[in-house]
Amino acid sequence: RQRITIDREIEQIVFGGVGGSAIAADVIIDWLIDRLKIPAVVVRDARLPRFVNKTTLVVALSYSGETTETLSLYKAARSRDCLAFAISTGGRLIDLCRRYERPFLAIRPSVSPRSALYQMVSACSIVLKEAGLTGRLLPAVGEAAKEVSVLRRHYTSTNDSSGNKAKQFAYSLKDNLPVVYALQRMGCVARRFKNQLNENSKIPAKFDLLPESGHNEIEAWHEANDLTPVLIRDSGESAFESKIMDGFRSTIKEATKTEALDVLIRSKSRLGALLCPIFFLDYVSIYLAFLRGVDPTPTALIKDFRKSIS
Amino acid sequence: RQRITIDREIEQIVFGGVGGSAIAADVIIDWLIDRLKIPAVVVRDARLPRFVNKTTLVVALSYSGETTETLSLYKAARSRDCLAFAISTGGRLIDLCRRYERPFLAIRPSVSPRSALYQMVSACSIVLKEAGLTGRLLPAVGEAAKEVSVLRRHYTSTNDSSGNKAKQFAYSLKDNLPVVYALQRMGCVARRFKNQLNENSKIPAKFDLLPESGHNEIEAWHEANDLTPVLIRDSGESAFESKIMDGFRSTIKEATKTEALDVLIRSKSRLGALLCPIFFLDYVSIYLAFLRGVDPTPTALIKDFRKSIS
Repeated sequence: RQRITIDREIEQIVFGGVGGSAIAADVIIDWLIDRLKIPAVVVRDARLPRFVNKTTLVVALSYSGETTETLSLYKAARSRDCLAFAISTGGRLIDLCRRYERPFLAIRPSVSPRSALYQMVSACSIVLKEAGLTGRLLPAVGEAAKEVSVLRRHYTSTNDSSGNKAKQFAYSLKDNLPVVYALQRMGCVARRFKNQLNENSKIPAKFDLLPESGHNEIEAWHEANDLTPVLIRDSGESAFESKIMDGFRSTIKEATKTEALDVLIRSKSRLGALLCPIFFLDYVSIYLAFLRGVDPTPTALIKDFRKSIS
Repeated sequence: RQRITIDREIEQIVFGGVGGSAIAADVIIDWLIDRLKIPAVVVRDARLPRFVNKTTLVVALSYSGETTETLSLYKAARSRDCLAFAISTGGRLIDLCRRYERPFLAIRPSVSPRSALYQMVSACSIVLKEAGLTGRLLPAVGEAAKEVSVLRRHYTSTNDSSGNKAKQFAYSLKDNLPVVYALQRMGCVARRFKNQLNENSKIPAKFDLLPESGHNEIEAWHEANDLTPVLIRDSGESAFESKIMDGFRSTIKEATKTEALDVLIRSKSRLGALLCPIFFLDYVSIYLAFLRGVDPTPTALIKDFRKSIS
């Protein structure tokens, strides 16, 4: 780890990455939605948007350090003279940083890219603080981690179905395609769950945001179909936000008699409100894999795809 | 219509709107991806992000002028002293503009919010030009409109299935849930098609972006299921982009024997490359409604949802 030297005014933040690495950036953006004073976006692509220039902080996230798109994006950031920073376990991305004498943060290898979420979030927090864009964030990350670790005993595999809400939830998703809805500021939870259902459970799933889905997607709910709606709730919902969630739920129910499943994990902190349901739903996706008789760990098709574009 | 007075440096653009109104902003952003020098985002919510301030151009889009979320967002923009602009057929949104003496652009009523796309795109083009953020865009909109209108005779309903690709395409989607994939810069086409399948055909559908989906969602394609993959192609694809599309397609095919359907409509202009496939897929969604024996026009559940949150 090297310190960043801040020699300019930062006007935008671009997190660059794909898959399990990019989701950490979504968590950061949803967490700091009311605190970041400049626009922050996640670019899941090899190309940088037109607006990116030397006033942009670019944070390249690649667990493996070998992701084709993220390597291209990092090189593009360097050629536009951005304040570029990399987060990775190693690979060519860190080699580039060393060669260019640019700052990076090396994280410890985990079981898989998707299980390194907590480390990736911590690393992003350090970068934002060092770039002078926020105060210290790590204490809050530590607090949220404590909240999450308390949940483990509820959801762990040795805890049988009768007292294990994660196992119960997986069972209720067994036969249908899950459709996950969340408000924008809980969007990372919905996206992460959808991706974990793909990667761990090996099933299709979709997520969408509210209130937007009430203005188009709701028309797909004229009849009961093979989909199960899941609503990501939040104990910090405003009266208007609760009205959105309840209105969406009751419109579906009146049209199809389908009851949406709620996910609501209470937490003390804003980051905990994101990481606690993510932790719960990570377990759900793994139990759903076991219910389907598949091994959640290998990701053969992702490997095939990555090979085809490298 | 009133002229905007530009009395400040604009540093970000926020388009505010939901459903059929918001999609025009997606088209604009994808169209100008290599031209806009400042970040532009679509906010499908009642809240403005933290970064929005008096250096932000806020364009509120509401076909009806009565959308709860967009009215709130417009009021919030005013209280933050943004350069705020409204586009609507009328309603309370235009009343607010008149009362506050703020600029607006009134568009003519159409059959439905979703059929006013072309007018909304034109109106946004005028706003960007008047705000000094681009050169004249309307000539390009006119060119693209000409390209689109040439397509009408191919897809019109009096043209029977044997020579009508839109009818043929609808038929191939008849029994399955469509899953639409596109590159980021063609994302508005995928999103619009998904929404039209919901609103016109009354069926569930999903869309996702590539290369991102190759890093998680591809794992859902281990076995043939009741989904039909649709790839939005583009005659302007780079070698790397074609590799992404082809790699994704062949990974699905090897795993499941499922052949993805391609959508590729050649066009002369960058905006035409977005509006031509949108026009084709709009027809597809309507033919699919007829195949399913449903009327594409009414949107009863959207009305129920809107009532529940107003």
